[in-house]
Order: sequence, then C-alpha cells, then structure tokens
Amino acid sequence: MRYFPDSLMRLLTELQKLPGVGPKTAQRLAFHLLKEPAEDARRLGNAIGTIHEKLTNCTICGSITELHDDPCRICEHPQRDHSVICVVEDPDDVSIFERTGTYSGMYHVLGGLLSALNHVRPEDLRIPELINRLRGGEVAEVIFALSPSVEGSATVTYMLQHLAPHDIRVTQIAYGVPIGSDLDYVDDVTLSQALEARNEVG
Amino acid sequence: MRYFPDSLMRLLTELQKLPGVGPKTAQRLAFHLLKEPAEDARRLGNAIGTIHEKLTNCTICGSITELHDDPCRICEHPQRDHSVICVVEDPDDVSIFERTGTYSGMYHVLGGLLSALNHVRPEDLRIPELINRLRGGEVAEVIFALSPSVEGSATVTYMLQHLAPHDIRVTQIAYGVPIGSDLDYVDDVTLSQALEARNEVG
Repeated sequence: MRYFPDSLMRLLTELQKLPGVGPKTAQRLAFHLLKEPAEDARRLGNAIGTIHEKLTNCTICGSITELHDDPCRICEHPQRDHSVICVVEDPDDVSIFERTGTYSGMYHVLGGLLSALNHVRPEDLRIPELINRLRGGEVAEVIFALSPSVEGSATVTYMLQHLAPHDIRVTQIAYGVPIGSDLDYVDDVTLSQALEARNEVG
Repeated sequence: MRYFPDSLMRLLTELQKLPGVGPKTAQRLAFHLLKEPAEDARRLGNAIGTIHEKLTNCTICGSITELHDDPCRICEHPQRDHSVICVVEDPDDVSIFERTGTYSGMYHVLGGLLSALNHVRPEDLRIPELINRLRGGEVAEVIFALSPSVEGSATVTYMLQHLAPHDIRVTQIAYGVPIGSDLDYVDDVTLSQALEARNEVG
C-alpha cells in the first residue's frame, strides 16, 4: 500500500488494529472521514483518544465509570437493592442487564473467567474484592451471570468454595430455551439443560 | 442507552456516525479500546482527529496528498508518462489503479459523477481543471476509468463534447467479463457488453 500518503497510511494502520476491521474496511472508514467535515473527524478522534483519561473502573464493582464519579452511579444509588450482587464477566455485561430494566441490585465485575487455556488464574480475577463486599453483612444473595461455557462453570465452581463460609444465598441465572425461539432451532445442549432444569407448572 | 457513563456515550455516538457501524459494533469497538493500552487509543484518536490537517487534495490531479507535498508524488514524478491522463471518480480510485502496478501515467480525479438524482451538476466536478491540463499540448490521451453505471456513461458523454476541440485520443477502460470468473455467474448486462466489445483473435 505504498500508494497512499504517509498520514493516510498511519491512519489505515491504526484503524486495522480494531477488531473486525481489515484493509478494505479501514480504507472505507478513512475515505469517509476525509469526505466528511474536519470537525467530525476531530470530534471522533478526541472521543477515542481521551477515553482512557476520562473513564476508570469503579473501585467497588469494577464496571466502567467516569473518573470523577467513583464509586459508580449504580454502587452509589440509594434506591437500588444493596443486598443482592450480580457477578458478571466484563463491564459490558453490566449494560446488558441494565438494558432489561428489571434488575435493581448491585453488580460485581470479575474481569474474566478462569481458563487454563488462556492462562487466567484466580488471582487475575476480582474475587478478593467480592469476598470483601460480603464482610459488611449487608449482602444476602450473590447471583452468578456468567457465560454457560466450560470457563463459566469452572469459575462458578471455584468461587462456590470461597462463598461457602459466608451465610448468603448463592444462585445463578437460568440457562434454557430462549424466549421467542423455535424449538427446531435450539441446539441439543441447551435443550438437555432446559429439560434438566425443568420447573413445576400449574 | 442511559446505563453508560457520559464519556462512553459520547464515544458510542461518534463511532455510530461511521458507515456500517451500528450500536453493537460501536459498543464492541469502544470496549476494545478500553481494554487495550491507553497509548493505542491515543494514537488512533490522534490519527483520526488530525487527518484533515495533514492531508489535502493535489492541486493538479485532485487526489489525496500530504499538505507539504503538493502537487502530489505522482504528478511530480519525472519517470511517469505525463502524456496520458486517467480520469477517475474518487481519490480512492487512484489507489486501485496504483495497486495493479501496470499504469504509469497521470490521474485526474473528477470528484463525482454527473447525476440528476443526487444533484451533481457539471460545475460540481473538476472538469475545467482537466481541460486546463490539456492546454499545454503535452497530453496525448485521456482514459476514462469510471463506473459502468448510468451516471458514469452520462459523465463520459458530457465530457466528450468538451474534449472534442482538443486534438487528443480519448479512450475508456474495457468493460467485460472479469478475468478468472465463471461465465455462469456473470450477469447478463456484462455478457452483452462483452459480446458487443468483442476483439479479433488468432
């Protein structure tokens, strides 16, 4: 790609570091930015370049929050239920549950899942921080909301040992057939899981 | 999306202005930027934010060049053939032909195609600049390399009138069956065009 000016080459190189952005997409994005007003490129560049300086991880739950807003709004919210903590893998999982609008408890971001393959060990996760939150005696329930994968199960199993000494209810979200889906298209593992986790009706 | 901090919301809004970037992709990109080192985000942000200040359009051919490198490297190149000008629609078309490595003439970027639908009139295109380049008498051939669309044909037809008074050869790139394609998969219009533009062999 020697046929582009240096500044454009640099932009293309940086864009291609983004997930899912190959040479063609990078070129499309770069020429789009050049066609639009300079002000737009400046605003986007500024929003990207300063994101680390403006955001941080909440010292309590570990999710994303403004630097000047720590602990985060959820952890500080007086109307939310401080007796329930939902344990998630990543900060973006918090947004997924918040979007539903039906959960009003607290969160705890682990920062990953135990994985021998990816060299993620217990000390890489925010487990001590969770145990610490249980010490005050205010927490009555911990809900695991992790991916239904080998890593997810391993993480729950490991953490159960550490939660056992504490007198709290430990639950996990229900795994089963997605609402609105056609049974024909649900995979076998999900169906087996849904059968096993069946509930009494009527 | 009220569940994200303001700085993150602003980043998501700006990212979604890019072509092909919806809410989900914006979120994936933003969380990727947050996970990677701050230096990476700063470099990308800087490359995007300053792109308009670093690049400009070459005053001769209209393609993209560094601000301090105008006329562009192609227009100034002593080894290239200054007697041939290839007329293209956009600056990125220049890179497409340069990539082939087989063309060694000059370029002229029109900046669009005539289109009643999109309100592109002759005065919106860099036609006078092309005519001007023919005045020196150095140019012997103008090659049209525009999209084989209604707009492309209309633009060629319009420009032919303006090129007629000049004693130069006017050609256009061959439109036909792409090399390596299976005839089964070539559309009818392309096939008809290929038949009509057939060449003597043997």
